[in-house]
Amino acid sequence: MTYCVGLLLDAGMVLLSDTRTNAGLDNIATYRKMFIFEEPGERVITILTAGSLSVTQTTIARLREAIEHPEASEDDSIMKAPTMLNVAEIIGNTLASVRQDIDHKMNASKVSVTASMIVAGQRKGGAMRLFLVYPEGNFIEATEDTPFLQIGEHKYGKPILDRVVRPSTTLEDGQKAVLLSMDSTLRSNLSVGMPLDLAVIARDDCKVTSKRRIEKDDPQFAAMSHGWSEALRDGFGRIDLIS
Amino acid sequence: MTYCVGLLLDAGMVLLSDTRTNAGLDNIATYRKMFIFEEPGERVITILTAGSLSVTQTTIARLREAIEHPEASEDDSIMKAPTMLNVAEIIGNTLASVRQDIDHKMNASKVSVTASMIVAGQRKGGAMRLFLVYPEGNFIEATEDTPFLQIGEHKYGKPILDRVVRPSTTLEDGQKAVLLSMDSTLRSNLSVGMPLDLAVIARDDCKVTSKRRIEKDDPQFAAMSHGWSEALRDGFGRIDLIS
Repeated sequence: MTYCVGLLLDAGMVLLSDTRTNAGLDNIATYRKMFIFEEPGERVITILTAGSLSVTQTTIARLREAIEHPEASEDDSIMKAPTMLNVAEIIGNTLASVRQDIDHKMNASKVSVTASMIVAGQRKGGAMRLFLVYPEGNFIEATEDTPFLQIGEHKYGKPILDRVVRPSTTLEDGQKAVLLSMDSTLRSNLSVGMPLDLAVIARDDCKVTSKRRIEKDDPQFAAMSHGWSEALRDGFGRIDLIS
Repeated sequence: MTYCVGLLLDAGMVLLSDTRTNAGLDNIATYRKMFIFEEPGERVITILTAGSLSVTQTTIARLREAIEHPEASEDDSIMKAPTMLNVAEIIGNTLASVRQDIDHKMNASKVSVTASMIVAGQRKGGAMRLFLVYPEGNFIEATEDTPFLQIGEHKYGKPILDRVVRPSTTLEDGQKAVLLSMDSTLRSNLSVGMPLDLAVIARDDCKVTSKRRIEKDDPQFAAMSHGWSEALRDGFGRIDLIS
């Protein structure tokens, strides 16, 4: 399983992914699920992935190949596509095509594969955009009303986002919100696991403004998780029961 | 959809259910999902239900018929069964048999029905016990390590329970915890809806100590929900971001 979340805030975008991959409960591995493509100052695209590793790895590999191809064109390279909408379309088409190929191969064993992606990006002169790309290649976009998108094991971590995240949320608070959302998910679902990848893209920077990997034994993340538990228990103690 | 939760605390048991039933998004109705069977001081059994309404209603009806049957025996009446384990077995067998009957009827339209139940009870001289009965009729039991059980849309409301509920939690705090757990679920999933049914069974009372229906416009529940949002936002503001 996986948990990835992206925020589209007035001040920029915040992205967080876990790294746990499992084929059954007895085959657990760590794989990066955050992929950054950038030409700093000109264009930044970050992709978060959930689903079958064979699908997501092949999709990312094909996107890379298309970028590096000597005759890369606007139609197939996400680094040349004229708009972020075109970028989402290229990613959606690539994902859908890879998924179909692999699904076809899996047919014999009656297993079905699937994957979805969050795509965040901005090109110079354009708007920041955040998309959720479905396994079929279609996609939806974050808006003022719904400024966050999640893929994978999204339910445990949604209540905190619903309550805290607004377009006006600062980048600092946005990072806190996604980390606490991840913390709730880590506690409830063993198949989501550390380390985490956290990235911030400030508005109009057109590059990854900051990124960091948070390891399992990160004392600051542990302190934050502990502080949040304390705050919840404190808050809980102050609420009056209806009578 | 549905959300029901039961706590097994040192001081007693706390049970909460919603009442929303839907067949598709355009056919929504209110049905009680909490059923109480008691002979006060001697035996109390509370059943919470999730799943296909046709299965849960028929199961409850058959359990009632068995109780009222003039030749009701230990083997089929949950009000005569010698232990709470036997009660869970009778309920499990009845549920499994009803589900199979209905599933068989549905076969033609390739639709499958399912249902699960939480069973809480105590008989005089016995221990309080809390079970989760699966659609197949088998069941698990709450323990010291896992003092709560959930059915239906359980994920949104789990983080608060994980953080707050321990066997030593008071009945008052237990009620707060299940109501806040429900509040998070109501916010995130439209197919879980008010009114709510809340019941408390204090240890060794062998009856429902208190119960109440919380209506949609209940000002105290609204105040509690609002207070919790405030507490979360306050707590969120006090946490330091890792740097």
